[in-house]
Amino acid sequence: VADVFERFLSTSDAIDVFGERSFVQAMLDFEAALAHASADAGLIPVTAAPAIAGVCKAELFDLDAIVAASGNAGSLAIPLVKKLTETVALFNADAARYVHWGATSQDVIDTAMALVTQRALTMLDDDLAKICVSLTGIAHTHRDTPVLARTLMQAAQVTSFGLKAAQWLAPIARSRWALRELAPHSLCLQLGGAFGTRAALGPQADVIAQKMATCLGLTYTRTAWHTQRDRWMRLACEVAIVCGSLGKIATDIALMAQSEVAELAEPSADGRGSSSAMPHKRNPVGAMVARAAALRAPHRVSALLSCMGQEHERGLGNWQAELAEWAGLFVTAQGAASALAVALSDLNVDAKRMRENIDAQSGLVFAEAASIVIANVLGKAAAHTLVEGASRRVIAGEGHLRAIIRNVVIADPKLTPSISAENIDNVFSAESAARFAGATVDDVLAELQMLGAL
Amino acid sequence: VADVFERFLSTSDAIDVFGERSFVQAMLDFEAALAHASADAGLIPVTAAPAIAGVCKAELFDLDAIVAASGNAGSLAIPLVKKLTETVALFNADAARYVHWGATSQDVIDTAMALVTQRALTMLDDDLAKICVSLTGIAHTHRDTPVLARTLMQAAQVTSFGLKAAQWLAPIARSRWALRELAPHSLCLQLGGAFGTRAALGPQADVIAQKMATCLGLTYTRTAWHTQRDRWMRLACEVAIVCGSLGKIATDIALMAQSEVAELAEPSADGRGSSSAMPHKRNPVGAMVARAAALRAPHRVSALLSCMGQEHERGLGNWQAELAEWAGLFVTAQGAASALAVALSDLNVDAKRMRENIDAQSGLVFAEAASIVIANVLGKAAAHTLVEGASRRVIAGEGHLRAIIRNVVIADPKLTPSISAENIDNVFSAESAARFAGATVDDVLAELQMLGAL
Amino acid sequence: VADVFERFLSTSDAIDVFGERSFVQAMLDFEAALAHASADAGLIPVTAAPAIAGVCKAELFDLDAIVAASGNAGSLAIPLVKKLTETVALFNADAARYVHWGATSQDVIDTAMALVTQRALTMLDDDLAKICVSLTGIAHTHRDTPVLARTLMQAAQVTSFGLKAAQWLAPIARSRWALRELAPHSLCLQLGGAFGTRAALGPQADVIAQKMATCLGLTYTRTAWHTQRDRWMRLACEVAIVCGSLGKIATDIALMAQSEVAELAEPSADGRGSSSAMPHKRNPVGAMVARAAALRAPHRVSALLSCMGQEHERGLGNWQAELAEWAGLFVTAQGAASALAVALSDLNVDAKRMRENIDAQSGLVFAEAASIVIANVLGKAAAHTLVEGASRRVIAGEGHLRAIIRNVVIADPKLTPSISAENIDNVFSAESAARFAGATVDDVLAELQMLGAL
Amino acid sequence: VADVFERFLSTSDAIDVFGERSFVQAMLDFEAALAHASADAGLIPVTAAPAIAGVCKAELFDLDAIVAASGNAGSLAIPLVKKLTETVALFNADAARYVHWGATSQDVIDTAMALVTQRALTMLDDDLAKICVSLTGIAHTHRDTPVLARTLMQAAQVTSFGLKAAQWLAPIARSRWALRELAPHSLCLQLGGAFGTRAALGPQADVIAQKMATCLGLTYTRTAWHTQRDRWMRLACEVAIVCGSLGKIATDIALMAQSEVAELAEPSADGRGSSSAMPHKRNPVGAMVARAAALRAPHRVSALLSCMGQEHERGLGNWQAELAEWAGLFVTAQGAASALAVALSDLNVDAKRMRENIDAQSGLVFAEAASIVIANVLGKAAAHTLVEGASRRVIAGEGHLRAIIRNVVIADPKLTPSISAENIDNVFSAESAARFAGATVDDVLAELQMLGAL
Repeated sequence: VADVFERFLSTSDAIDVFGERSFVQAMLDFEAALAHASADAGLIPVTAAPAIAGVCKAELFDLDAIVAASGNAGSLAIPLVKKLTETVALFNADAARYVHWGATSQDVIDTAMALVTQRALTMLDDDLAKICVSLTGIAHTHRDTPVLARTLMQAAQVTSFGLKAAQWLAPIARSRWALRELAPHSLCLQLGGAFGTRAALGPQADVIAQKMATCLGLTYTRTAWHTQRDRWMRLACEVAIVCGSLGKIATDIALMAQSEVAELAEPSADGRGSSSAMPHKRNPVGAMVARAAALRAPHRVSALLSCMGQEHERGLGNWQAELAEWAGLFVTAQGAASALAVALSDLNVDAKRMRENIDAQSGLVFAEAASIVIANVLGKAAAHTLVEGASRRVIAGEGHLRAIIRNVVIADPKLTPSISAENIDNVFSAESAARFAGATVDDVLAELQMLGAL
Repeated sequence: VADVFERFLSTSDAIDVFGERSFVQAMLDFEAALAHASADAGLIPVTAAPAIAGVCKAELFDLDAIVAASGNAGSLAIPLVKKLTETVALFNADAARYVHWGATSQDVIDTAMALVTQRALTMLDDDLAKICVSLTGIAHTHRDTPVLARTLMQAAQVTSFGLKAAQWLAPIARSRWALRELAPHSLCLQLGGAFGTRAALGPQADVIAQKMATCLGLTYTRTAWHTQRDRWMRLACEVAIVCGSLGKIATDIALMAQSEVAELAEPSADGRGSSSAMPHKRNPVGAMVARAAALRAPHRVSALLSCMGQEHERGLGNWQAELAEWAGLFVTAQGAASALAVALSDLNVDAKRMRENIDAQSGLVFAEAASIVIANVLGKAAAHTLVEGASRRVIAGEGHLRAIIRNVVIADPKLTPSISAENIDNVFSAESAARFAGATVDDVLAELQMLGAL
Repeated sequence: VADVFERFLSTSDAIDVFGERSFVQAMLDFEAALAHASADAGLIPVTAAPAIAGVCKAELFDLDAIVAASGNAGSLAIPLVKKLTETVALFNADAARYVHWGATSQDVIDTAMALVTQRALTMLDDDLAKICVSLTGIAHTHRDTPVLARTLMQAAQVTSFGLKAAQWLAPIARSRWALRELAPHSLCLQLGGAFGTRAALGPQADVIAQKMATCLGLTYTRTAWHTQRDRWMRLACEVAIVCGSLGKIATDIALMAQSEVAELAEPSADGRGSSSAMPHKRNPVGAMVARAAALRAPHRVSALLSCMGQEHERGLGNWQAELAEWAGLFVTAQGAASALAVALSDLNVDAKRMRENIDAQSGLVFAEAASIVIANVLGKAAAHTLVEGASRRVIAGEGHLRAIIRNVVIADPKLTPSISAENIDNVFSAESAARFAGATVDDVLAELQMLGAL
Repeated sequence: VADVFERFLSTSDAIDVFGERSFVQAMLDFEAALAHASADAGLIPVTAAPAIAGVCKAELFDLDAIVAASGNAGSLAIPLVKKLTETVALFNADAARYVHWGATSQDVIDTAMALVTQRALTMLDDDLAKICVSLTGIAHTHRDTPVLARTLMQAAQVTSFGLKAAQWLAPIARSRWALRELAPHSLCLQLGGAFGTRAALGPQADVIAQKMATCLGLTYTRTAWHTQRDRWMRLACEVAIVCGSLGKIATDIALMAQSEVAELAEPSADGRGSSSAMPHKRNPVGAMVARAAALRAPHRVSALLSCMGQEHERGLGNWQAELAEWAGLFVTAQGAASALAVALSDLNVDAKRMRENIDAQSGLVFAEAASIVIANVLGKAAAHTLVEGASRRVIAGEGHLRAIIRNVVIADPKLTPSISAENIDNVFSAESAARFAGATVDDVLAELQMLGAL
């Protein structure tokens, strides 16, 4: 009974990570690690550990029945621990006494969530890495390719497409770096017992916790984090941030792939982005998925943050809501990263069309540059007025801004001596503008390398 | 690969309504209805309709493969229509030409969503109805049962538990009424063709749409609503509102079920609300589920509202995000309604403990009432000062407020003639206060009946 | 200390409605109405009412000091009632006893919020009405003006600009209608006394409430709504819905005003939408403001809905958070409506450019129409394949789709007899397509009139 | 026209930081720094810098008029730069040419926002520091004070109040640490010119940017961050996280301050937390404000994250929405921190009542501890069943769990030899349990010190 549209907007792999089998297996991994560590510490008999761990295999359990029983029990751990205990008892009645010993429901559930989240992060990082490689390549290849810079959705000036790509890249690279930094702080073993003190584990509690953390590949903390979710939330926030950054790329691609702009197109493949009614269409489906994620992720984070006020030593409703909201954020992010990784792996860049779109602006996008050259002579205010007037003439259809400015310069004895025809040509050169912007590409990449994010 | 915690917090039935099989069947219902209506209108051959409709059965299709193909296609409709066409062609090659004729992806998907939403609303209404019955019963039974009124989480005065129940009831009853009013406006057939004009259906388009709407039990609208989602959103908002109202009930139950308050308890049943570590616990799991829903629903609505800016004639990313967010809201609401329906069906009300909690306040909760009686003689400001002073003496442990006030009245020649011992006793009577509040129960119920909401 | 950017994105009038002076005056209006109604009912002396009402003027009070004192008091009502009582006492010590008699803080604050919200709704409706007039005009004027229909941000087919305008109009008109329907249910007098029963007002409580409601122009309800916020929330949801609908219009305008599309432009006026650095720019500032509102409003609604779980008889933190979130939603909506009212009042529509953008698509946007004509002969699948092939040839630069299809038809003996040159020309006529879409304009307007929404 | 309820829930100081005067002064600080750095770099005449900087004083400008003009201009920078230029020209016409030279609207606005945010963070840190001091004190003082541990809002076991305080402290201390770490990455000079390349500043651009950053106390970055908002968002997320952590403390205080629990009370002061209608009330107003902030902050963050998809080189609507949402988050956080700083500075802790509440549980809260001791003999499952039965007898009113267990042990020959009366007494000792929990206090504090967060 998978949700149809979650799957439409993500990958099966991402969904499976948080699915029944994977999650219950992670819970069983916790129980096995607990048994081993407790036996090593002498808390439970040495023979109990293999007896318990030996049946900690999701495929032995009727997962559907366990999940179905969770609602009434008020916890997923209760029916699982019950079934696990019964299963252990089939083989070793004595060992069955020690199942889940000293732990509480929240210990096994939070730890399992940390374990599957770790896998989700690895998958996410893989796709983000692919995106970074593609964008670094585009940034180099198109370092000096002129393209319109657009502000407030209007043609503004001329930049380089490589710089656009580098600016797309920077936040993704920084988020990869941030996620790597955060993970060891956020992905911690949960082991507190009923109310956070590990009381039921006796004097060996910390040793047990340390062994379990090592065994499960999670971080050991001296104290439980049952109702202190700040470290956990930092991870969620960063995932939402990367969704936002992916969404920005997707929006730019969608805008540049519009029929009237046509500077970019997503790679075509059999059936990819076609329309059921319109045979000519090639829809930017990678951008579509990433935009959907960027729309959705902020609301997941706000739901998660709203769950932080967990009462006393375990919350009523808020902890459970957090559990239910958590997976969606990661699945959504994975969908976006994976979709853009494909879209960017073979992005069609039409440099010729980029240039045509610049030319179609009749020089208006060099107005500021012209203004600066004139301002050197007349001051900023007068230059702005002069260029604004010339721009209006362009809009009225009187020709290219370069020609109009040239005539103004020739006609004005204050300007003629200082501004040559060559000066003017240079101001209106898309290539010069792109080269200037291209130099910034190097800066962006250098800055990322300095940070260790690339 | 169902999400574990969605299921934990809702019901299988609710999840199934939006699941693969149910959703794809709803899409096939659309295609069958389209074929029949188009044949009736002479747009497609008469024989094509049964040929198409005859295979519009979800069990004939490899749902998993279809959903898996949807991502690359950029739409769930494309692979389904393709498979449906192939399946029809197995039996009737000519009819296969007319599958999905004149419709677009969004037509079939939006219509399917309306169909399954209709079922979800029926289920939701069933549970809300149960809640209304339970609460009306409690309101009657405990019309005059004294209980603390609490403001800002502090004991305030004395009200009746029946009034609490009636106030819990009112918003639920109003939401049931609102959902019934809204449904025919929100649950509309989507049929617009590629860009909303039904162009490909020819001159019979409206007739076809009307027949389809009738056949599917949805509302006919003259125009498509591809990118006009206001009517659709009103439904989502109302569902979120009912989640908020359920959450308020749940919060009050949780507060009144605290060990130190102990005025209410959820019904106990085998294993319901037990703890894996603490054998004595009986957790209010119905309140837990409803509180989780109340936490989550607002973020779903905000996600859905954020999807409204769908570009031009079909959105890129926002329509798709809306689809993915929609089910969660209804599933969450259903979980809450169902959980509270159980919790309220046999709510344990401890009237004795309610009374003890009033008594433990040493009369302080009658301070305003006392203040009013005294204010009739001394004015409001002086009375407030006098009662505040007396209250401080109660807090300091000098006895019950009634006794202290009585002594003050006796000692003050301005007060003695106007305020008798009987007056004072009446002021401090929990029964009187509850009876007064009980009268409001009738008002609440009358108001709901007038509205037709009960 | 107004927030700079709230003002940037809204109007002073909207901000003032929820400002200190306006809000405190509304509180004083409540106190005056309470005094009059209580005197009429014989609850307080006849002379007290004019003595109280006479000083219920915001300009008599140090608003800054009152707001400053509210934090510590935990309520805005406490310092205001205190100051009001002192002020009344200056003139009539006896009357001062009866200030705020029988009411609680929440009564005066919620009622004041309803009063100022009523004014905000009137302002909002004024601007929505202007938008409806403008859009109805555009829908009529451009009923048959061809323009590209675009789906998933790609050119799809040809529609009419009038239909676009009509589709923009419909949700706005429906929301105006919905707001008018909702207002009397949502804008209710709040009068419950300390815990909702009007206990302190005695047997005349309902008569007093009715008089107050009439006097203040609010709806009377039999019971208070201190912690039942559903009716209140419906209003907020509808305002967010209209923000979403305004945002959709704004997004379409922004997309159509892009330099490369250039089909629309916002009206120019001195300094409107200019750039500090680029003299040639004319930014779509109306769309900018409305898009900002559409981004923000959903989060306000989700904040408001999150406040619904108000504990017991008055919430701790949630009621207060609701108060603080409320104004922002209405101010934001007003900003959007006002900005689009200006932008649409004199929208520049470039029908010539719309036509050029269609022509630039080399007939591809008529592919579905061509497909249908051919499908009548060959069936849908074969037609789709044929047209897809022809479309690919257009994309490869082999000419206009009409010419390619014509040649295919001539070359194919199955097609030649059934499809004439005239048939083909008709399929590729932008005028025909627009006229067909134009007919839907009439349907949209008729549907709105039937609803009473226009 | 300040918003009444923002002020109610925050401090004037916090609101002022983002107010007109402060924000415009920060913009002028940017212009002054730009002028100085540009003069030093030889880009503008040496004399222009003091001429410009000399009038960069907010008190010289009609702020109201400038903000009023911002809406139509589509930017706050445009009217300010215009007025600044005019003002400079009054004294030095030549210098006026160089005002804002090479910068764009977004440069000055984003930089100003970074500057005022820096101040807001300092204020926030001050209050968080006070909270940390208070909580560290409480953690030490009540290290071994027994108090109920409560899970799912039900009495669970016995912990120490010092541990509660330490657990409240840990996330606040970590957030202080995180905010200090993040600030230099997030608070960056914005200087990119029209489209992010600093083109108009010429070859000295980076030198100018470095000087400006140093002068303004912000971080220098090699490239602009006009539409790369990830670093900026991390700060917002962390502020929302600290709101969540403050909200958790506030919720616990509110729950423990309930009349029926009465373990904690906020400090009383004249008028603090009183009620307009009920003279005996002392409302937890600090908790109220912090809970309001915890409710609101997540929605601000989600609004901010929703603004990340800024189009091309400057967004239309999303950048502007971000500006308008930003202040609210910080103002809200400041309100919460300040309110809790006061509430915790002199929190009334009633250790006697804490003990009474434990005793009222008739030993049930030691059920798990008893279960463990018995499990050592009988195994976990049998022990659980035995203790569950005994617990039921307690609930049925048959006495204290200790007595019942004692009798069971005496009656059971398997248990008698292994479990002494002393063993049982120890299990049921609140002091032992609190001491055990108290040891964890040291762990929490040690962990924070290790991190450098305390």
